[in-house]
Amino acid sequence: MYSIGVDLGGTNIAIGLCDAELKLVDKGSVPTPQNDPEKIVKEMAALARLLIDRNGVMLGEVEYVGIAVPGAADDKSGTVIYTPNLPFKDYQIAEVFKKFLPVQRVILANDANAAALGEALAGAARGAAGCIMVTLGTGVGGGIIINGKIFSGSLNSLGAEIGHTVIAAGGRQCGCGRRGCWEAYSSATALKNMTSEKMQELSLKGIPSLLFEEAEKEGKVSARTAFNAMKRADTHAKAVVDEYIYYLGTGIANMINIFQPEVVIIGGGVSGERENLTAPLSAMVNAEQYTRNSEKKAKIVTATLGNDAGIIGAAGLGR
Amino acid sequence: MYSIGVDLGGTNIAIGLCDAELKLVDKGSVPTPQNDPEKIVKEMAALARLLIDRNGVMLGEVEYVGIAVPGAADDKSGTVIYTPNLPFKDYQIAEVFKKFLPVQRVILANDANAAALGEALAGAARGAAGCIMVTLGTGVGGGIIINGKIFSGSLNSLGAEIGHTVIAAGGRQCGCGRRGCWEAYSSATALKNMTSEKMQELSLKGIPSLLFEEAEKEGKVSARTAFNAMKRADTHAKAVVDEYIYYLGTGIANMINIFQPEVVIIGGGVSGERENLTAPLSAMVNAEQYTRNSEKKAKIVTATLGNDAGIIGAAGLGR
Repeated sequence: MYSIGVDLGGTNIAIGLCDAELKLVDKGSVPTPQNDPEKIVKEMAALARLLIDRNGVMLGEVEYVGIAVPGAADDKSGTVIYTPNLPFKDYQIAEVFKKFLPVQRVILANDANAAALGEALAGAARGAAGCIMVTLGTGVGGGIIINGKIFSGSLNSLGAEIGHTVIAAGGRQCGCGRRGCWEAYSSATALKNMTSEKMQELSLKGIPSLLFEEAEKEGKVSARTAFNAMKRADTHAKAVVDEYIYYLGTGIANMINIFQPEVVIIGGGVSGERENLTAPLSAMVNAEQYTRNSEKKAKIVTATLGNDAGIIGAAGLGR
Repeated sequence: MYSIGVDLGGTNIAIGLCDAELKLVDKGSVPTPQNDPEKIVKEMAALARLLIDRNGVMLGEVEYVGIAVPGAADDKSGTVIYTPNLPFKDYQIAEVFKKFLPVQRVILANDANAAALGEALAGAARGAAGCIMVTLGTGVGGGIIINGKIFSGSLNSLGAEIGHTVIAAGGRQCGCGRRGCWEAYSSATALKNMTSEKMQELSLKGIPSLLFEEAEKEGKVSARTAFNAMKRADTHAKAVVDEYIYYLGTGIANMINIFQPEVVIIGGGVSGERENLTAPLSAMVNAEQYTRNSEKKAKIVTATLGNDAGIIGAAGLGR
């Protein structure tokens, strides 16, 4: 048996064909058509058909198609409720997909949640029943896996908006309207902002730092600047990274105290720092988490599936 | 069919006999014997037997006995792992209980979680599939119900330590070792401390306030002092309550953004303020929670089962 995972993005539709062991047999991607929901679904179905055909798979051998949606989806009714960057609004995507490709079943999930499921089933947290994925990109995204299944909320299926939990009441303004959200301190954007602020401060005081050299090398200040300068033993860069890790670890310890996951998976751009991030982070979080005695500690690991997490997770939605 | 719920406390063992609809048919309580785990379980079994006998119920009609434990319990192995205020440590409570009263099944849960289940099945959140109970007492306790079941963690069954999530990084010292925990701002103890601090400040400046009169009336500063003075239109008392609600609401909005529960139940001493607490709290939380469009909002309600929440929840563990 096979399953197909669709990762519907604002720019591209990526699709993977997975076997019974959730191994990626083949994958492909096409640009996302703009402004027309039906056209998007039609392209999706065409690419899925192409993958099936070129791998000699029969349509009847495809158990289901999972679709990872960049927004809110309601799996029960097969509806995409809302996508901020695509033209879906209360759209019966499952029904329309089946019109173009008559598969047995279409399953929907939010894309961040699907990526977390992918890492839980076939990636960094393989074999863990409970895990949390924290994606450090433009924002702080989250995926919660409980008993091998996505948990996306009881009343509204809004995904697990862990980035919009306040960790510093009255603190930095967040895009969601609250002040002091985890996202305002731990996203790649926040790290870039903290780095810029430190550079301005140093610049005003005329203090030299490798931060300036690294930023020049890259042509801009990015979420990498502070890590790069820190690796060259710059103390100001280390101060920025330490502050970043303090807030990131605060949020992760919060999640561990609530969920007691086996594994915390770090994904997104900043996760590319790998052990430079996870080693000090683990030390900080182990000291902060609430364990009464000698309980087992959650492991903090880097995501391993990269851009394939979404398609593999979507293909795993029925497992 | 019947079930029995045991609420094992440091001072008393309370037991309830519930019918198939989880209605409390009869209840009783005995002092908790000190220092001897077996004696505690023996008393428990004797009181359970008494309730069965005096209600003309046959032992075979009791489907199971649920025990709410003030600490960490592992239901799979029938073991109380640890209780901070009672002498249990890796204790096979289910097996010992069955020795004294041969029931078909013994189910274990943490007491805060059991109380949340009680409110979800038969109290303030009756009929809700997903809810969070926040207990405002000495600390901030939590219970998480997902799909009508207790969620108590994946790696360690430590309960949902939502009180030990940092909402004000670097802020007030918490008993758990972290700084800025929700518990350090929103427990009854924290409210009492905030009130004392305000009174000290007013006292130093020679500013009069009904806070002093209310404290004198009660013979001490308590978690009620600020609410009582606020009801008499004291602006300083209102400032204390507003601050308390700000932090409490911050933590509740965090939980809503993570769990999207249908209902948030407020229990514990401070919940006695009822609408004086829940009305301003709901207004604050509705403005803070993350909902992309016109999604349904979680309701914030006061617990209704009082001290019976634990025994009813324990009796509901097998439902």
